[in-house]
Amino acid sequence: MIIVLKPDCTETQLSHLCDKVREMGFNYEVSRGVKRTLVGVIGEEDRLRNAPLRAIPGVEDVMSVLKPFKLASREFKSEDSVFDLGRGVKVGGGNLLLIAGPCAIEGEDILLEIAKAVRAAGANVLRGGAFKPRTSPYSFQGMGEEGLKILRRVGDELHMPVVTEVMDPRQVELVSRYTDMFQIGARNMQNFNLLNEVGQTKQPVLLKRGMSASVEDLLMSAEYILASGNQRVILCERGIRSFDKSTRNLLDLAAVPNAKGLSHLPIIVDPSHATGRPDLIPAMSYASIAAGADGVHIEVHSCPEKAMSDGPQALLPEQYSDVVQKMRELAKLLGREVPQPV
Amino acid sequence: MIIVLKPDCTETQLSHLCDKVREMGFNYEVSRGVKRTLVGVIGEEDRLRNAPLRAIPGVEDVMSVLKPFKLASREFKSEDSVFDLGRGVKVGGGNLLLIAGPCAIEGEDILLEIAKAVRAAGANVLRGGAFKPRTSPYSFQGMGEEGLKILRRVGDELHMPVVTEVMDPRQVELVSRYTDMFQIGARNMQNFNLLNEVGQTKQPVLLKRGMSASVEDLLMSAEYILASGNQRVILCERGIRSFDKSTRNLLDLAAVPNAKGLSHLPIIVDPSHATGRPDLIPAMSYASIAAGADGVHIEVHSCPEKAMSDGPQALLPEQYSDVVQKMRELAKLLGREVPQPV
Amino acid sequence: MIIVLKPDCTETQLSHLCDKVREMGFNYEVSRGVKRTLVGVIGEEDRLRNAPLRAIPGVEDVMSVLKPFKLASREFKSEDSVFDLGRGVKVGGGNLLLIAGPCAIEGEDILLEIAKAVRAAGANVLRGGAFKPRTSPYSFQGMGEEGLKILRRVGDELHMPVVTEVMDPRQVELVSRYTDMFQIGARNMQNFNLLNEVGQTKQPVLLKRGMSASVEDLLMSAEYILASGNQRVILCERGIRSFDKSTRNLLDLAAVPNAKGLSHLPIIVDPSHATGRPDLIPAMSYASIAAGADGVHIEVHSCPEKAMSDGPQALLPEQYSDVVQKMRELAKLLGREVPQPV
Amino acid sequence: MIIVLKPDCTETQLSHLCDKVREMGFNYEVSRGVKRTLVGVIGEEDRLRNAPLRAIPGVEDVMSVLKPFKLASREFKSEDSVFDLGRGVKVGGGNLLLIAGPCAIEGEDILLEIAKAVRAAGANVLRGGAFKPRTSPYSFQGMGEEGLKILRRVGDELHMPVVTEVMDPRQVELVSRYTDMFQIGARNMQNFNLLNEVGQTKQPVLLKRGMSASVEDLLMSAEYILASGNQRVILCERGIRSFDKSTRNLLDLAAVPNAKGLSHLPIIVDPSHATGRPDLIPAMSYASIAAGADGVHIEVHSCPEKAMSDGPQALLPEQYSDVVQKMRELAKLLGREVPQPV
Repeated sequence: MIIVLKPDCTETQLSHLCDKVREMGFNYEVSRGVKRTLVGVIGEEDRLRNAPLRAIPGVEDVMSVLKPFKLASREFKSEDSVFDLGRGVKVGGGNLLLIAGPCAIEGEDILLEIAKAVRAAGANVLRGGAFKPRTSPYSFQGMGEEGLKILRRVGDELHMPVVTEVMDPRQVELVSRYTDMFQIGARNMQNFNLLNEVGQTKQPVLLKRGMSASVEDLLMSAEYILASGNQRVILCERGIRSFDKSTRNLLDLAAVPNAKGLSHLPIIVDPSHATGRPDLIPAMSYASIAAGADGVHIEVHSCPEKAMSDGPQALLPEQYSDVVQKMRELAKLLGREVPQPV
Repeated sequence: MIIVLKPDCTETQLSHLCDKVREMGFNYEVSRGVKRTLVGVIGEEDRLRNAPLRAIPGVEDVMSVLKPFKLASREFKSEDSVFDLGRGVKVGGGNLLLIAGPCAIEGEDILLEIAKAVRAAGANVLRGGAFKPRTSPYSFQGMGEEGLKILRRVGDELHMPVVTEVMDPRQVELVSRYTDMFQIGARNMQNFNLLNEVGQTKQPVLLKRGMSASVEDLLMSAEYILASGNQRVILCERGIRSFDKSTRNLLDLAAVPNAKGLSHLPIIVDPSHATGRPDLIPAMSYASIAAGADGVHIEVHSCPEKAMSDGPQALLPEQYSDVVQKMRELAKLLGREVPQPV
Repeated sequence: MIIVLKPDCTETQLSHLCDKVREMGFNYEVSRGVKRTLVGVIGEEDRLRNAPLRAIPGVEDVMSVLKPFKLASREFKSEDSVFDLGRGVKVGGGNLLLIAGPCAIEGEDILLEIAKAVRAAGANVLRGGAFKPRTSPYSFQGMGEEGLKILRRVGDELHMPVVTEVMDPRQVELVSRYTDMFQIGARNMQNFNLLNEVGQTKQPVLLKRGMSASVEDLLMSAEYILASGNQRVILCERGIRSFDKSTRNLLDLAAVPNAKGLSHLPIIVDPSHATGRPDLIPAMSYASIAAGADGVHIEVHSCPEKAMSDGPQALLPEQYSDVVQKMRELAKLLGREVPQPV
Repeated sequence: MIIVLKPDCTETQLSHLCDKVREMGFNYEVSRGVKRTLVGVIGEEDRLRNAPLRAIPGVEDVMSVLKPFKLASREFKSEDSVFDLGRGVKVGGGNLLLIAGPCAIEGEDILLEIAKAVRAAGANVLRGGAFKPRTSPYSFQGMGEEGLKILRRVGDELHMPVVTEVMDPRQVELVSRYTDMFQIGARNMQNFNLLNEVGQTKQPVLLKRGMSASVEDLLMSAEYILASGNQRVILCERGIRSFDKSTRNLLDLAAVPNAKGLSHLPIIVDPSHATGRPDLIPAMSYASIAAGADGVHIEVHSCPEKAMSDGPQALLPEQYSDVVQKMRELAKLLGREVPQPV
């Protein structure tokens, strides 16, 4: 931690600052430059970060030298994390995760129809929402437990692991009974109590980036889950808010190699929520694979016109099949492992 | 709702679209322009908004004509809402809410010391966090129920209503026993289950704007609380994320008259979290009052150097006192009601 | 300048780095922390900033300690700059600048009508565009020199200094013949050749903040003008781009005290372009004064329905008059000098 | 153009609005919904867009139905534009443009060395800046005409077309004598006079997206050049400003298929300026090709430690060679034409 002093910082203020730093239990080193004096504070970075150094008179700025996440960092674990999600599905280390399914679970027949189609196309995990976070209280909020049961039955019938969103710490136990993997949505990325709660389960967590979260913020939220004892976190880039409204959000594909440099955790991309536009999803899926993503999450619906949530952004099963085919070729060229369609 | 057709939309597609719209139970009107054909869909706007019109072939765009919030809107209630927060403190309709206190509750003596100082300066509500949402799992997370008890005792001793953050639907009942008003933090603005939960209590809710939330998003979150039965929501502008890192967030003061035009709910401003810089807080407090805010929320600490959370952004009690003095004069000039300091 | 080394930086890399730094003519100091080694580089900060230190192997980050602007800084000049704009109009040091007029000059009669109205209301500088930067090549681009002549005649007739935009270094000489102050628009804030050109004149420059410029970027652009020899620069906050489309841009009022802390230059606010909404302009004008702005720039048109550019965001003269009246009272309360209406 | 009336719009106001619309020479159609009355205005969209409809009393909103660009649009020209840049280099229609070279021209020997290396690696256009737009007036501003001469000689010697930035309308004629293609930098994307000036030449223009420009804004700037008579515009995505400072800008790869859907113009990507981080450039180059880009623009320097501008973000020639090799394989897989290295 480096403290930059104000140009008019007095010797008395400097001496008060040094006393404070010593009182807090840290060592320090004063370095006098041409225009500014600096104080380098040495000690455990975590404790340093929480110390109110910036409130001490004479201090202009405090600059941190280390990243604030630990368990999620490459420095903690240098090789890529690889997780087994059940049913032989792996993610990380070159294994591609292909998650597909409808936005919301709407009934057993329609889910089974979509699930068969995406499995045939090559998807290896089935998604579907039973609890839906909707901006409006008047929108369809999901089927709840009834939806979870349907998702479980369809997953079992097709031998596919399933993933579904959990929005409330009170639902973690209930959802855990039906799902193979939790999804934490963008709006809950900093719902710290929910992160702690899923961190205490043994199921993998798909953690979506918040709409105004930096890559570092995303890794700090992953750190909450890791620090609670659950090591299986999969990051998901799904776009952030921007001034350009031609896409729903702004897909930040540089986040993929960026996160991979900082962390050992797998990271996948969700071009459906990022763009909100089916015409852009194929190109963004290919770009995700080329950027090094460990998988892609795509919404698919056999009849988008009838979907109860986000229909307009879903691909048709035949479109999804073409996208998977091309992603497979790209991944092969780039030396990644691609699951064979069943 | 207006549907804009693609330039190459065929008559068969148009006819399919019209059938679908009729099937969904809506009336429509086709209008053929020089370059584009439009279909105006007439019906209950809420149902319309949820209909997957954009997924129908031939559709280029769907434009909404009405705002998506109802109970929160000026159209629903044209005069300003005025709430009584207890102990004679009112907000809205020209009554200024002056919330002050430390970021986190750290102990009874220090809270009492700060509370006496802010009360003397003119604050009419005491704030203090017992549950703290922190980006890092390794930061101080608050004193929990012990902190709530301290807050209650200090509030009672000084006859001040108190406000504190609730982060988890499971804590709503607990927190309600000690607080006069809930605070929903920026990170939880779209934690819809938490909104529903506080919506079912009888206590007022201070709802902070999310870091990437539009003013309309903020009003939709207020709508969740109102639709759950709790009419006492106070909006709070606290800055949004921006590329300019010279302030912690970007304070959007135009949100104040903007929200007041759209909604009858009171709106206050939090310049402490918005700027993160004590040197900017006085100017932004005066600007808030001049912009028409119904109050200001400021962090005050008698010893920022020792604060356990956000110390560096707190004002000293004597600075706060000066700020209140000038806000009082401004408010008087602008015809607002200012609480007299005790 | 502080160089943070990578955790795996070798002694050979460190030694290569130190050689390079010495070769570039700088002194340095190595400081070994628990987890990271730092190298403090000492020397002229400008030259340091341009040295490609980050490209040297083993370097993780390079952190600057000083601000990159000099002539514009408070450290260079501690008291507020006060400029005389002619006809007895001053700006800075508590003197309020009230610029008003139509977006574009459309003809002599209408400009004279508007100018008389804004002067009567209390404006002390008349604005009007003769060269208009328009997003579309098919929009009205301004009257050119003919417009400049009209502006000059109207200004002379009413004894008001005038300000108009210059968009092209080739027009600087022409525009200088007719105007009392140049305006550099947001889109040209980083048109460095234009900045140099107006920097070589003797006329004051109203420099608008770019839509994605930080406060520091704005000050760097001012530095270009100051470094070219022209000391009379007035900054103008006019909103930046944001995801919330309910206002045209996002007015950043914290930029006012922020710039005032960093620089001695006056700063005014343009709520017309910032919000694009006449209903929000009054509140944002009052907030600007309360935030400490040295003036306000407002578009006024006597018949917005007929305006050839940006009509919908203009105030009517009678609305402007009310706004000035209230700004005057606020400024007086806050100890600022307000020009008396003629 | 659709006009949405305010809920309280009177019949008198409606009738006044209809008179105004007729006076402006447009037809209209009134449509009365349950909660809102709409007026559809029919006529030439360009003229409509410039009409101050929003300023007429009773109007709440005005919604445009058509895109504001014409010559740049897919509707105007449905097949991809393909341009010949000289020396047998084509762009568009599947032909990849591989631009490489140093940020700034620093001398003939070093440019020749770099140019030979990038040509050997497969680049087909050489870049180098002679006029540099620098945030600070104290940074190296480029070699000027001397640099242009060096660039021309090196391009001729190696039979490579060259591209260089032009910043000032006064330099267009000078630069045109030495370059094969103009570059308009991000900061000048809305320097409309400069756009007009290069629009009047016969040389292709590489138009970079501004830091706060939407894709539509970029196409409007292209429209300026096209409308001035120059049809050979190549768009360039180079990142926009965002709150996440881990990369220099935020690369918006969805802009590639998005622009391709809206326009027939080629679009390339500049991952160097977008990320500012050599470690992310390879992945973002592959992602660009996979997203459908017509080429990639990368800064390469044989000795980044000695570069006079942006050295730290340059790739080494050997890194560039590896990146080109993999891009070539990806492009082949995706059916694109790749230039053979010489």
